[in-house]
Amino acid sequence: MIGVALELFSKHSPDEVSIDEIASRAGISRPLVYHYFPGKLSLYEAALRRAADDLSSRFAEPHEGPLGARLRRVMARFFDFVEEHGPGFAALMRGGPAVGSSTTNALVDSVRQAAYEQMLAHMGVVGPAPARLELVVRSWISLVESTALIWLDGRRIPREELETKLVQDFAALAAVSAARDEELATLLRGLVKQEPGDGPFTDLAARMIALAQE
Amino acid sequence: MIGVALELFSKHSPDEVSIDEIASRAGISRPLVYHYFPGKLSLYEAALRRAADDLSSRFAEPHEGPLGARLRRVMARFFDFVEEHGPGFAALMRGGPAVGSSTTNALVDSVRQAAYEQMLAHMGVVGPAPARLELVVRSWISLVESTALIWLDGRRIPREELETKLVQDFAALAAVSAARDEELATLLRGLVKQEPGDGPFTDLAARMIALAQE
Repeated sequence: MIGVALELFSKHSPDEVSIDEIASRAGISRPLVYHYFPGKLSLYEAALRRAADDLSSRFAEPHEGPLGARLRRVMARFFDFVEEHGPGFAALMRGGPAVGSSTTNALVDSVRQAAYEQMLAHMGVVGPAPARLELVVRSWISLVESTALIWLDGRRIPREELETKLVQDFAALAAVSAARDEELATLLRGLVKQEPGDGPFTDLAARMIALAQE
Repeated sequence: MIGVALELFSKHSPDEVSIDEIASRAGISRPLVYHYFPGKLSLYEAALRRAADDLSSRFAEPHEGPLGARLRRVMARFFDFVEEHGPGFAALMRGGPAVGSSTTNALVDSVRQAAYEQMLAHMGVVGPAPARLELVVRSWISLVESTALIWLDGRRIPREELETKLVQDFAALAAVSAARDEELATLLRGLVKQEPGDGPFTDLAARMIALAQE
């Protein structure tokens, strides 16, 4: 039943989904739905919890190989999720009376926190992150969310381009902050050393040099 | 009365503000408040409308002089607003049952749209923006919002540093996208030509070169 609900909530905003439709698609009676879930909100929250677990798991990735390639794979899995759950993702992130509750907000925050912790782990940071690194990672995660929302509204840019762009955005934002933070600069230099000649970071550097020379 | 309400809603989340307190501080009777505003939500929305007009106006700036300096002034006014309305700003942007309504969402969107249009005007763009430029500007605006929220949570980085950092973030994000979009590259080159030697964009370029050479 939660699977059916998640599918419906993925393709429609919560306003457009009825308990009747969930019951009918799941092949069970309306009273049985109400037996397990006292109202649409509790069913929505259960579906959202499953989606949140799924999304959090997509940031997990073996800590092997260059960071750029790892983040590129994470971004591809993230955009897969956004495609699968498009209208539901947009309704959730845009908020509003039908979706905003302290439970749904806490679920969204738990995904952001999981993504944040995975990012630090990918960068080899153990323990609490310094303030500037925390800001770079958390604000980049919000940039990823807003980029996905803008993309969903018309899909005017190919998603593969955005997946690479977001990895390069991370490098650019980290570099801006590293330019005034020696600790962050040392961390970044160590990561850049492991990048191959055909990775997204090297690609960005080459494009930047070309841009500056024109 | 709206002024009193705005001040209270700025310093506390809507949950913590009562109609009684607004009436008492405004020196009017509780029934009179209800005469004008049928409930706390309508008074909250009126206060929010005034705050939204105020915030939108802070992105306005004469279209003169280098872009970096203009954006730096806009960011300083934006952080002034965030300081004045801290807890209310955080409660609004984090959403939740007490603040999420279609009216409050529409107000937040109207401020984002005003900021977006002001940014295009500052860049000298007339008419609808190309898709990549629109994405850069809109996603940067969301980066500004999330950076302010992270800053409010502990204020671990001086706000003046963040004001400059956000202007430099804009340049960095625009450069990443310009590296694959000739139209955007031409626009950026024109803007960079007008930058003085002591502006935030030149400062970023110098810091990047120093970072790369170490």
